[in-house]
Amino acid sequence: MNEPLRIGVAGLGTVGAGVVRLLQQNADMITKRAGRPIHVVAVNARDKEKARGFSFEDIEWNDDAASLASHRDIEVFVELIGGDEGVAKVAVEKAIQSGKHVVTANKALLAIHGHAMAEAAETAAVTLRFEAAVAGGIPVVKALTESLAGDRIKQVYGVMNGTCNYILTKMESTGKDYQDIFDEARDLGYLEADPKLDVGGIDAGHKLALLASIAFGNRVDFRGMDIEGIEQITFEDIQLAGDMGYRIKLLGIARMSERGLEQRTQPCLVPKDSPPGWIENATNIVVLEGEETGQVFLQGAGAGQGPTSTAVLGDLIDIARGRRISTFGQAASSLTKATPVQDGRDVAYYVRLRILDEPGALAKIAAAFGDAGVSIHRLRQYGRRIDDVSATVLIVTYQTSRQKIKHSLTAVRQSGMTIKPIVSIRIEDV
Amino acid sequence: MNEPLRIGVAGLGTVGAGVVRLLQQNADMITKRAGRPIHVVAVNARDKEKARGFSFEDIEWNDDAASLASHRDIEVFVELIGGDEGVAKVAVEKAIQSGKHVVTANKALLAIHGHAMAEAAETAAVTLRFEAAVAGGIPVVKALTESLAGDRIKQVYGVMNGTCNYILTKMESTGKDYQDIFDEARDLGYLEADPKLDVGGIDAGHKLALLASIAFGNRVDFRGMDIEGIEQITFEDIQLAGDMGYRIKLLGIARMSERGLEQRTQPCLVPKDSPPGWIENATNIVVLEGEETGQVFLQGAGAGQGPTSTAVLGDLIDIARGRRISTFGQAASSLTKATPVQDGRDVAYYVRLRILDEPGALAKIAAAFGDAGVSIHRLRQYGRRIDDVSATVLIVTYQTSRQKIKHSLTAVRQSGMTIKPIVSIRIEDV
Repeated sequence: MNEPLRIGVAGLGTVGAGVVRLLQQNADMITKRAGRPIHVVAVNARDKEKARGFSFEDIEWNDDAASLASHRDIEVFVELIGGDEGVAKVAVEKAIQSGKHVVTANKALLAIHGHAMAEAAETAAVTLRFEAAVAGGIPVVKALTESLAGDRIKQVYGVMNGTCNYILTKMESTGKDYQDIFDEARDLGYLEADPKLDVGGIDAGHKLALLASIAFGNRVDFRGMDIEGIEQITFEDIQLAGDMGYRIKLLGIARMSERGLEQRTQPCLVPKDSPPGWIENATNIVVLEGEETGQVFLQGAGAGQGPTSTAVLGDLIDIARGRRISTFGQAASSLTKATPVQDGRDVAYYVRLRILDEPGALAKIAAAFGDAGVSIHRLRQYGRRIDDVSATVLIVTYQTSRQKIKHSLTAVRQSGMTIKPIVSIRIEDV
Repeated sequence: MNEPLRIGVAGLGTVGAGVVRLLQQNADMITKRAGRPIHVVAVNARDKEKARGFSFEDIEWNDDAASLASHRDIEVFVELIGGDEGVAKVAVEKAIQSGKHVVTANKALLAIHGHAMAEAAETAAVTLRFEAAVAGGIPVVKALTESLAGDRIKQVYGVMNGTCNYILTKMESTGKDYQDIFDEARDLGYLEADPKLDVGGIDAGHKLALLASIAFGNRVDFRGMDIEGIEQITFEDIQLAGDMGYRIKLLGIARMSERGLEQRTQPCLVPKDSPPGWIENATNIVVLEGEETGQVFLQGAGAGQGPTSTAVLGDLIDIARGRRISTFGQAASSLTKATPVQDGRDVAYYVRLRILDEPGALAKIAAAFGDAGVSIHRLRQYGRRIDDVSATVLIVTYQTSRQKIKHSLTAVRQSGMTIKPIVSIRIEDV
C-alpha cells in the first residue's frame, strides 16, 4: 500500500466532524479511489469533550490551531474554523509558511485575503483548495477551474445562500413577512452567529467573488462588489412579482465586459420559469456560461454536513492523487486587478409605489419616468382600499441604466404624489 | 515559459476541428490556465482538403491515425474518430502502447473496451480521459470521479441523448408521430450515421455504462445493461402520460444494490415537475446521488462543437497541469466484476391497452392484474369512438416487480378482451 496522506483538521463543527467521520466510515473506498489512505493525524477544536460522531482513536488532540497548522507530521491542513480574521487566518498563513497544503471551506477568509494567500501558496509551492467554500456539495469550483478552463466565461450567476432562499421561499408559501420567517429561521439554527452575513448578502457575495476570480482571471475583489441583502423584501413584493411571472431571489451575478468587472449580489426578480426561479428552500444553483459551452447548470445542496464534508474530501482526494493547481486556476502573479463596474448591464426594473388618490397623480408619475428617459413596459394600478388614501402602482420598466432609474425615482419622490417608501428591484432575465 | 504539451488530433469532424480551433483562438488564456502552451503537432482526418475553421500552419498532416498515435513528438493522442472498432480502436491501443496519454470523446469504444484499455493505460503509466464522451459540455465525468470521490454513490441517472430528447419533445409539441419527427431529425443531421445508436438507446447506454463504472467501481459492463429505444413511443402515449402528470423521457439509470448492478436505458414516465421532466430538446441532464451529498443536478448542452470541444480541452488542460488519474477513478485491477441485476427496483407501470366494448371486459382486465399480484393505482377508460369496437384504457399500477407486470400483461392478452398491442412503460419517480 502507498504512503498515507497525513492531515490535520482544525474546527470540528458540523463540517469538520463530518470530514473525520467520513474518512473513517468510507476509509476503504477512499483509499481505493485516492490510491492511498488519508489519515487524520491530529485535530483541533474549542471543546475537547463534545461527542462528534467519530472515533478519536489514534488521533492526536491539539489545543492550538496554529500549532496544528505547522505540525511536523501533517502534509495537509484542513481549516474548518471559519471567519475572515483571527484564528483561521493565522492558522492558514502558518500552514502555508510551513509548506502544508491547505483545504478550507472558509469563503470569508478567501474573499478578503484570497489573493495574498494564493501568492503565499505559490511561493511555498503548496496547493490551497476551497471547493467546500462555494455552494456546499455542488462541485462548482472544480467545474469552473478545470472543466471549463478551455472556454472564455461570459458570466457566472446563481443562488448561493440557502438561508436567504429558505426565507424567501417560506415568505412566499406562508404569506408571512420577512421578520417572522427570519425569527423562525434563527430558531431553527439556520442563521450564522452574525445573521447579517446571510441576510445581508455578504456570504453569497463572498462565494461569488471567488467564482469571479476563477472565471475572469482577476484578483478576488469582494470589496468591488455591489451587495444588498433581503431585509427589505416584503411579502407584498413577492406576491406582486409573482403576479407578473417572477420570483424574488438573492441572485449573485458576475460578468466581465470591456469596461470591467460587474459583480453584484442583490435581490432580483427572475422569471418563475428559469433555473434560478425554480430553486426552493435551501437548495443552491450556479450557472456557468461560457462562449463555447453555453450554459451549464449545477444544482444541489448548498450546505449541511454531508454535502460540505464531501466537497472537502474531494479536495483531499485530489491532493492525495497528486493534484496541484493554482488557487484561482492560474498563477497568482498573472491575475489582473479588476476594474469594478458599478453600473453594469442595463436591465428592466420592478418599481412598486403608492400614489395618492388625486387627479393627475398617475400622469405625474408616468411623466417622471419619461422625463428621466425610462420607458414603462407594464403598469398596473391596484384598486385602493376603502380606508386608504393611496393606491399601489406596479411598474415594470424597459431595460435601462441604474443612473436613469435613480433619476426617475428621485423625480417620482419629488412629485409629491407618492407616500411610503418606493421599492425598486432589478429584473434579471436569466 | 514552460515546455508546451504536444498533442496529436485524429478526427477533424465537428469536435476535432473545434478542439484545434479553440486551442488556436484561446491560446493565451489556455497557456495561462494550463501553466504552459498546448501545441497541436499533427492531425489526421479522412479528407485533407476540407476547410475546418482553423489554421494548418505549423501543423503536420498525417494520413494514418495509428501512426499519428505513436508519433514521436506527441505526448497526448486525442481520438475524435468515433466507433467501437476499426481505426479508433487500433489507434488508441497504439497510443497507449507507445506511452502516450489519450483523450477521447468515444463513448462506444470505452463502453465496450474500456476495461481492457484502462488496464493497458495502467500498465503503460499513461492517463486515459473521456469527459467529452458523456453529456458533451456537462462536466459529469469529473464531478463523479473527483468531486464526489469521498461519497458512496447511490444512483446515477439522467437524460443523456439529445437526439432522443429532441424527438420526444418535438412529438409532444407538434402532435406528430415518431416516424415524422424521426425523418425531420434525420434531415436536420441530428442523427448518427446509424440512427439505431441514438433512437435505439445505445448511445445513452454507452454513456451510462461509463458513469456506472466510476460510481460503483465495477468494470464497465455495457452488455449487462437493459436497453430499449424510443421507436415504439407514440404521440398517444406522450399525450396520455401528460394527462397523468408525466413526460416520457429516454432515461438512463444505474443503481447498485446488494443483489448487484442495475443498469437500464429505457423510455420512462417521469414526473413533469422533476429535473428530468423539465429537460427540453437536445439538453442533457445528469443527476448524481450520493449518500452524503444528496442529489447533484448537472444540466447543459449534451452535444455540439463548443460544449464537446471544451470538454476535450478540459482533459487536455488537466494533463498539461500534471494531472494523472485512473481511467475509472481507481486502479483498473481494483474494479470488480458487476453482477447484472435484470429485475431491479420495483416501480409503478403505465399500461395502455384497448379493450373490446363487451360486458365484463374491464372486470376481466382488472382481474388479470389482481391475479398476478399487481395493484391498480389509477385507471381511466376513455370514451369509445362511434366507429370503433374498442376503448382505450389507461392503467397506472402501484410499484411492482417486472416479473409480476409481465405475468399480468400475459393474462390480459389471454383474456381475449383486448386488441392491438399493449403498451407498458416504467414510471421512475425520480
